[in-house]
Order: sequence, then structure tokens, then C-alpha cells
Amino acid sequence: MNNEEVNKTGTLAQREITKDGSFNRQKNCFTTPFGNEEGQLPVEAGRYRLLCSPVCPWAHRTIIVRRLLGLEDAISLGTTDPMRPNVDRVDWAFTLDENNIDPVLGIKYISEIYLETDPNYEGRPTVPVIVDVKERKVVNNDYFRITNYFETAWKPLHKEGAPDLYPELLREEIDALNDVIFHDINNGVYKCGFARSQEAYEKAYDTLFARLDELDTRLATQRFLFGDYITDSDVRFYVTLARFDVAYYSAFKANRNLIQNFPNLSGYLRDLFQTPGFGDTTDFHAIKLHYYLSNHIATDDQKTLGILPKGPDTSILSLPHNRESLSESESKFFKQIANKGRTFHGSCT
Amino acid sequence: MNNEEVNKTGTLAQREITKDGSFNRQKNCFTTPFGNEEGQLPVEAGRYRLLCSPVCPWAHRTIIVRRLLGLEDAISLGTTDPMRPNVDRVDWAFTLDENNIDPVLGIKYISEIYLETDPNYEGRPTVPVIVDVKERKVVNNDYFRITNYFETAWKPLHKEGAPDLYPELLREEIDALNDVIFHDINNGVYKCGFARSQEAYEKAYDTLFARLDELDTRLATQRFLFGDYITDSDVRFYVTLARFDVAYYSAFKANRNLIQNFPNLSGYLRDLFQTPGFGDTTDFHAIKLHYYLSNHIATDDQKTLGILPKGPDTSILSLPHNRESLSESESKFFKQIANKGRTFHGSCT
Repeated sequence: MNNEEVNKTGTLAQREITKDGSFNRQKNCFTTPFGNEEGQLPVEAGRYRLLCSPVCPWAHRTIIVRRLLGLEDAISLGTTDPMRPNVDRVDWAFTLDENNIDPVLGIKYISEIYLETDPNYEGRPTVPVIVDVKERKVVNNDYFRITNYFETAWKPLHKEGAPDLYPELLREEIDALNDVIFHDINNGVYKCGFARSQEAYEKAYDTLFARLDELDTRLATQRFLFGDYITDSDVRFYVTLARFDVAYYSAFKANRNLIQNFPNLSGYLRDLFQTPGFGDTTDFHAIKLHYYLSNHIATDDQKTLGILPKGPDTSILSLPHNRESLSESESKFFKQIANKGRTFHGSCT
Repeated sequence: MNNEEVNKTGTLAQREITKDGSFNRQKNCFTTPFGNEEGQLPVEAGRYRLLCSPVCPWAHRTIIVRRLLGLEDAISLGTTDPMRPNVDRVDWAFTLDENNIDPVLGIKYISEIYLETDPNYEGRPTVPVIVDVKERKVVNNDYFRITNYFETAWKPLHKEGAPDLYPELLREEIDALNDVIFHDINNGVYKCGFARSQEAYEKAYDTLFARLDELDTRLATQRFLFGDYITDSDVRFYVTLARFDVAYYSAFKANRNLIQNFPNLSGYLRDLFQTPGFGDTTDFHAIKLHYYLSNHIATDDQKTLGILPKGPDTSILSLPHNRESLSESESKFFKQIANKGRTFHGSCT
């Protein structure tokens, strides 16, 4: 998770906070793409290990896409504790494994493999990160592109009938929407929570809710962001929506409305949550532990008190969503895409 | 406001936190009742001054009842800042007045009149408090009973057509319900927010929401808590409901549901909010300032950051509530009361 650089008093490190109090996320370092060309990372079953904390939205989307595409056997998964370890650095720990050690890499903290790869590495050791087990080094932590590599370069290893989450004809539009989702929504909630001036906070808040309103309207007439089928954009949108009422609303002061009170986003979230790969990879208790009590993200007072909010009631995510009917009639947007000659393969539901 | 005894680190003073981490509110000191009997406080127009902070729920209900009964000319009102003053004690300041001084009593902080009354006073100087201006001393800070005195002893000074908020035939039942509202709801939210153990917090949370569910059900078939007319109990319930979505949900972790998402409490709150005396005495901005940023109640981190949540959207409180229809058909409860020969005088709406 690339979002919680903090100093010892629990506030963000200066380098990720600009003069006006805004939060600016650090850039990634390991960005070599997967592919068959010279200099690219070769696609090979059993060679790589994906290290994740399922509480982290950026990591969570790689877990969802890996599952949707049936890449579980091709790429192994190492899972860290939802809580930041109690060490004097920003890190993620393998406390869920026997002896607190990742059984494949033999490491206790993800920082170990970062430093083994580059002894001069000074960035935060982030998840998701892909490790080449054969060469024992970090090869990619480009959280913005990992799902796209899974969807394209890794296609030969997809399960039969896997959905096409990144259809060629829509890539330009998906990329454009993913940019918006990233800046204004995925990272937008962090800009609210990590802002260090009222002005920066309110700017992030206004942008966030304007985007949510916009996408709520878009989803009034179509089941998913690009029509009848789930795409990469839906996965990206989901990870923030799933954490919203549980964490961001209170912990990050993103509190104009709960997602459950948006006319269309509420059902859209339930629809995705009930789709295999989404709800079954979403651990609300771990998410709350992380955002309310973890080192480097929770405030000092929250940590001192150590009290975890009991609510909200997440059982409502299992209620009927009644959005199937939107799939039956082609939306205006979907018609437009269909006119481009688009064909879809498979469905996630 | 009698709820924020804190030590210098921003946590509650030990004397109001029990060994199991629960919050136990201090008792009041000045409890002489109003009345015509020997030793009671004589009811006299122009003699007393009510000191309040409108952000405080206990004070707010005296402001509402004073307004509903038309006692504005009989009892003057002094209003303090929503923020706790930046002094090394728990206090309330008259920063809203010229030169920061209450124009009637000539004091800067309410602690001054407490100490003038009793130089050995060691409790927190709380609001609401009634000062005898003629004798220049605190005479009553019994926040639990002040509205009842206004409703009974002060009856000769009520405006014409004032509602009977405390009908004799219902007093026993109102008192019983007021006890429940006080312990489980009014103070219940503080027990959530001020708990210092997970167990104490969850116990308070469960009790709070069980009561809210119970009253939500009660209000499904009747417009107000005791049928067709507003009573003292509705005023007591209102002050917590009005602060709930705006402050308690996030700041006190009372986050199972927002009030706006309860099937009946949502409309009930809108109904009261739209009744003169309720919404027009409710200052959401001041309430947020108090609960999120004020000394002695906000956490150290909140104060350091100084960022005020922009939400939630309170404009929804002005939407139609459609509860008038419940007044037309007598509820089961109301019938039961009617059978006792109850008669009501006036209505607040």
C-alpha cells in the first residue's frame, strides 16, 4: 500500500505533503512491463509471487482480477497482516504465516525483498508487489498497471471462459476513466483523509463527491461502468466503494453521504459484492483494523485508545440489488460501444 | 455541558472513568427546585438568567422548551462559544458578546459565577445553569430537571396556547421514558465516545442501538413518543438525534446506522426539526466545531489537524416528512392514554 508515509508523531512525511497541505502520493520504482519482447518480464506460470495486504485497495484489485481471470495457479499469493508492524518503519509483515515468515520467500517483512533487490531502495516498500521467485527480486510494483498486465500479457494463462476485463475496443475509454477513478476516487479519499489544510481537504472532498455523483448518474441506466459486463474500471471503482462506508466516511472525513445512500451506487456495490471474486476477497474487519488502528495510518489518539468501531452494518451488502434488469436492455452507452463492433467474451456473474 | 472532564493529554479525567473503562458522568450540585414552597426558588419574571451553549445537548433542550413555552421574556439567555476556551481548565466562554463579557453578569467564563457562588466549588462548571441575577449566584444546574421546572412551576408565565409538554396524567410514563432516554441515548452516545475499553464501548453501542430500534418501532404508528403531541420526552430525544449523523456517528463511533437510515426516526427527526423551536435553535456548524475541534472533547490529533468534516448533507432535514397523517389516527398507545381520561392542551406544530 503506497499511501501512509508518516513521521513518528503520526502525521504524514513532509515529502508527500505539498506546501498547500495537499497529499501527493510517491511514484513507483519497479515498472518493467510483462510481455514477450526484449527487456519485458516473461509470462511464466509458477515463476512469480504476488505480495499483498488485502486491506490495501491497490493490492485488493490485483487479488480480485487474479481470481476473476483464474490466475491463482499461475501466480502465487503472499498475504500480509492488515496492521502495520510495530517497527520503526513503514512496512508490511507476514504475521499470518507460520513463524511469521512467508513460506516461499522466507522473509518476515516485505521491506526485506525490496532491499535485497536494491540495497539503496529508499521508497516505501509497497504492496501490491510482484516478486520473481526464480531470480529472487522485486520486478514490478506498478499498482496502476498490474491488473492490466494480468488482463493482457497473461491472457494465455487465463481460465477457460474468463471475462475480458480490458476489451481492446474499449481500452482507450477504460484508461481515461481509470485515470479519473484513480485521481478523484481511489486516491481522492486519501486526499481527504491526509490533507493538512481545510482548503486542501474541502477541495478533495468536493472533487470526490462530484465524481461519485457523476458515476452514480452513469450507473442509473447501465449495470456496470461500461455496460453489461464487468471491466477493469469496475474493479478499480469497487475497492474504494467497498471501503467507503466502513472506513473512509468517518476515518477520512469523506462524509457527505454513505455509499448505501446513493440511489445507484448502493445497488451497484451490492451487485459487485455478491459477484465471486469481490465480496469473498473483502475482509471488513481487517479493513477497519487497518484504517482505524494500524500504525502509520491511524491517528495517535485512535491507536492509544485502541477502540475499533463496531459499525456499520455490512450485512446490507447481501440484500437484493435488482440490477440484473439493467443488463437486459442495452444502455445508450452500450449501444454506442456495440456500434463500434465490440464483442464481449464471458461474464463474471 | 457536563460531559467532558479531561486531563491535559486529552483523555477523560480518572474520576469519571471507572475501572472497566466505562464513562460515568459527574452528579450536579445545585438542585433546589423552583416552586412556591419554603426553601424553593421563587418563580419571578426577569429575575433569572439561563446560561447555555447551544451545542450542548443538555443546554439545548432548555433552549427549546423555553422557546416552546414562550418564556423568553421571563428568563433571559446568555450564550457561550461552541468551542471550549483555550485555558487550562474545562470552561465555557462568552466570546459571542461584546468584549467577550456576558452583558448581564459581567463575566468572561461561567466558572466565575460558580466560584463566586461557592469558592470551594470543585465540579466542572456546567451548562445549562440558572443564575439568580438579583442575588448574583448559581441556583440550579440540574440539567435533568430544568425543563420540568419550566413546564410546571413556570406555568403561570407560559405564553397563551403554549403546549403542555408534561401533562399530569403522563408524568409517570414520561419520567420513566426520560430515564431510559438519558441513560441509553443522551448519555449513551457519550458512553460510546468516551469509553476506554473495547468491551465498555461495545456494551454502550449495543444498548444505544437497541433503544433506537425500540423507539423507531414505537414511532412507526404514532407521530411523537406519546402520541399526537410533542412532550418533554420528544425534546430530550431530539437533541441527541439532531447531533447524531453530524457528530456522534463518526466522532463517537456510534456508527451502526445513521438516523437518516432508520425507517421512522428519519421522518420523526425531520418533523421535529421543521417545528419552530427545534431546527431554528440547532446550529450544525457550531455542533461540528464543538465535537470535532473543541478542547476537552476532540482528540489531540483532531485538534492538531484542525480540519472540520464538511459533511454530512443536513439539507435533507428540510425534506417532507409525511408524518402528519400519523396524528389523524389514534395509535394503540394513544388510545390507552385516552382511556385514562387524558386531555391535551395545545400543539407545537
